[in-house]
Amino acid sequence: MGGSLEFEGRDIISIKDFSREEINYVFKTAKTMEPLASKGSQILRGKILATLFFEASTRTRLSFESAMHKLGGSTIGFAEAEIASVKKGENLADTIRTVENYADVIALRHPLEGAARLAAEFSRVPIINGGSGAEEHPTQALLDMYTMVKEKGKIDGLKVAFVGDLRYGRTVHSLAYALSLYNIELYLVSPETLKMRREVLQTIKERIPVVERTSLEKIVPLVDVLYVTRIQRERFPDPAEYAKVKGSYRIDLQALSEAKKDLTILHPLPRLDEIAAEVDSTPYARYFQQVRNSIVVRMALLALILGAAK
Amino acid sequence: MGGSLEFEGRDIISIKDFSREEINYVFKTAKTMEPLASKGSQILRGKILATLFFEASTRTRLSFESAMHKLGGSTIGFAEAEIASVKKGENLADTIRTVENYADVIALRHPLEGAARLAAEFSRVPIINGGSGAEEHPTQALLDMYTMVKEKGKIDGLKVAFVGDLRYGRTVHSLAYALSLYNIELYLVSPETLKMRREVLQTIKERIPVVERTSLEKIVPLVDVLYVTRIQRERFPDPAEYAKVKGSYRIDLQALSEAKKDLTILHPLPRLDEIAAEVDSTPYARYFQQVRNSIVVRMALLALILGAAK
Amino acid sequence: MGGSLEFEGRDIISIKDFSREEINYVFKTAKTMEPLASKGSQILRGKILATLFFEASTRTRLSFESAMHKLGGSTIGFAEAEIASVKKGENLADTIRTVENYADVIALRHPLEGAARLAAEFSRVPIINGGSGAEEHPTQALLDMYTMVKEKGKIDGLKVAFVGDLRYGRTVHSLAYALSLYNIELYLVSPETLKMRREVLQTIKERIPVVERTSLEKIVPLVDVLYVTRIQRERFPDPAEYAKVKGSYRIDLQALSEAKKDLTILHPLPRLDEIAAEVDSTPYARYFQQVRNSIVVRMALLALILGAAK
Repeated sequence: MGGSLEFEGRDIISIKDFSREEINYVFKTAKTMEPLASKGSQILRGKILATLFFEASTRTRLSFESAMHKLGGSTIGFAEAEIASVKKGENLADTIRTVENYADVIALRHPLEGAARLAAEFSRVPIINGGSGAEEHPTQALLDMYTMVKEKGKIDGLKVAFVGDLRYGRTVHSLAYALSLYNIELYLVSPETLKMRREVLQTIKERIPVVERTSLEKIVPLVDVLYVTRIQRERFPDPAEYAKVKGSYRIDLQALSEAKKDLTILHPLPRLDEIAAEVDSTPYARYFQQVRNSIVVRMALLALILGAAK
Repeated sequence: MGGSLEFEGRDIISIKDFSREEINYVFKTAKTMEPLASKGSQILRGKILATLFFEASTRTRLSFESAMHKLGGSTIGFAEAEIASVKKGENLADTIRTVENYADVIALRHPLEGAARLAAEFSRVPIINGGSGAEEHPTQALLDMYTMVKEKGKIDGLKVAFVGDLRYGRTVHSLAYALSLYNIELYLVSPETLKMRREVLQTIKERIPVVERTSLEKIVPLVDVLYVTRIQRERFPDPAEYAKVKGSYRIDLQALSEAKKDLTILHPLPRLDEIAAEVDSTPYARYFQQVRNSIVVRMALLALILGAAK
Repeated sequence: MGGSLEFEGRDIISIKDFSREEINYVFKTAKTMEPLASKGSQILRGKILATLFFEASTRTRLSFESAMHKLGGSTIGFAEAEIASVKKGENLADTIRTVENYADVIALRHPLEGAARLAAEFSRVPIINGGSGAEEHPTQALLDMYTMVKEKGKIDGLKVAFVGDLRYGRTVHSLAYALSLYNIELYLVSPETLKMRREVLQTIKERIPVVERTSLEKIVPLVDVLYVTRIQRERFPDPAEYAKVKGSYRIDLQALSEAKKDLTILHPLPRLDEIAAEVDSTPYARYFQQVRNSIVVRMALLALILGAAK
């Protein structure tokens, strides 16, 4: 990587499009954003971000908008498909070819796989994928890893466990792929029915050691990072089965009794009760720091692709 | 009060947290905001207000956002709970601990009593209560009183009547409490079923003279300020009863025939037909001035708690 | 026209309020906005646009908001009536007399005929009609014509065909009226049931030659501009009739086989399939340039009525 040139005008569609060097460059840029996140800046003054959220995600949308404002830019957009002209049957390509005239960069959230990629094909302005389909959420993966770097100094050498729904959880797919570019050991802890999909697993296993387990108990003491995800009721036809599964992957003080002293617990949020409130006040809990880091990582991406990061 | 220091970083949760001196200080600051409201300013440039409205209130939300823009700041937020991650079952504490990373101050509207107080307990950034439950709407009370000061020069000595729904009307509770810090006479005019709650009344009566009436007729000629509120259909099981009650508290030219010449009529808005359109063009009608005053009062609060008011 | 003075503080309600000289003046101003649309500007810094959309129209709303941001201003507003206090039964006049205190200019979209005119009567700040009822959408007409000027150099002398639903299509009414101020020939191509209303037609026919046809075939080779509109399913009680009509007014390469070499195809968007995707890559297709032009035209209007255009 020779500087920011390679990012200017670039789409951020899939974490799979990033090399390890590029990811590190995003982290380096994010670090330079830390002071700007506190005191504000005007480096994107006159620039407009459009947040097109065809699927509600208040957290991600507000994070992008906050990042843009902290750089001095403006935002326009919509928060769910129902208030978009989509109701009139418009196709995504036309929406994009319209909004590219209104904005300098577009953050897109869409329920369908491939939507962000399609948008990028039609758009003259850069597209940032804010989550699409079941697999891609590249900015989430980047902020998750930036948090690991901030907490642990580096990613290489870490033992990381994913816990919960590894089948449908969009964030774990992007994150697993990105982590496999580093020298880590990955532990996958989930019920049988929510195991990580074979095709994702296969790619990762070619690069890093992966251990799959259905029980959390023996894994906790081993790992440096525990990445917890929501287990959603709607995945279970049987409510009793749901209750049982949910209980056995719940992180509370008891579950953490043999954790490493410097364990870092992350969660993409929102959480239901898979992490007990009693954990929030422990030094393990870093999921709200993750939110804070989301701002600087998204500031970095916006500044890079709009050519404003030095 | 020694200046703005006491307000910097402060939460605005309940009008009951304010001393008379603090209220006067807000008014003094609001007055300095009047020129900025017309010509704009940049004293909050780089600052972000999050408007989290779990209950729709376009009027209050846009007022806060306008105030923030007039000070050079930015806004993010949502307009109703349905598009928030609340749908995914997230609790308020987590929402707050997320959004505090996106914004420098949060204006919160919530249907539940105590929501703003709870939010403030979890938040590192100041919370402004934009209305919660049935009792608290402190910024409305402040702008109502600022309007009285602007119209009448001072609050001490005023005879003020509240008319309409004094039981469920959120604004009258905050306002009654705040007015009781001044030397006023309060007249409460409402149907039996919509009388002000005993617990609110009790506190107020310890401080100021209060007269309760079910008929408006003899009260109008006595008072300096008539504060009218909506009587909502849904409070009446019997539509005929509703129609009758509504009619007898309606303010029209006839009802005002013996009013003092300099009577000031206020209303928190939106109104249905409890004030006839014919009243709008009289000098009594100051409810749209109230709206204008909402901007400078909210500008003052934002500037004070963000440490930007001199 | 002696400069911008006549526009400062002016409402933009109906295209019928514009003289030919005023329209040309808007175009001249729009041209000066072209560089600002790319690099941004601060001429409306400190000014606030309220977008009050009582009817969803993401395209028009975002276009206004983008135009305001590109001039350095801020925006507040709502995207559909459901989240407005309208739900509480408030009338439009009260909404306007509230929001005029929050903003320097209001863009209003409303399903009812006459809503923008009524709003302007009550408002102290300028109202821009962003579409109301079945007839008025003046900013759309202006941007349509600005596109013709940019594509063809001038409007006088053009042969223009409107195709599709000329009865219910709001944009064609405003546009037909405005074009009749110039020396053009107008071709109206629509099914019998969707012909342009008599009252609109009568006014136009007094000024310019108008030809009505139900078949597209012989018209295409004659015209310089083809203005295509959506034919909506809900206009047809019989689905078979809808399918037939839709097919015969569809613009595809076959329909364009005898078109003039420099034909310009426009569409107010969103489109369904009345223009085939294969047309998008031809030089005829200028409907996305229309979108781009919407920004500079709306920038011009905002700058003019707020007194910021030189």
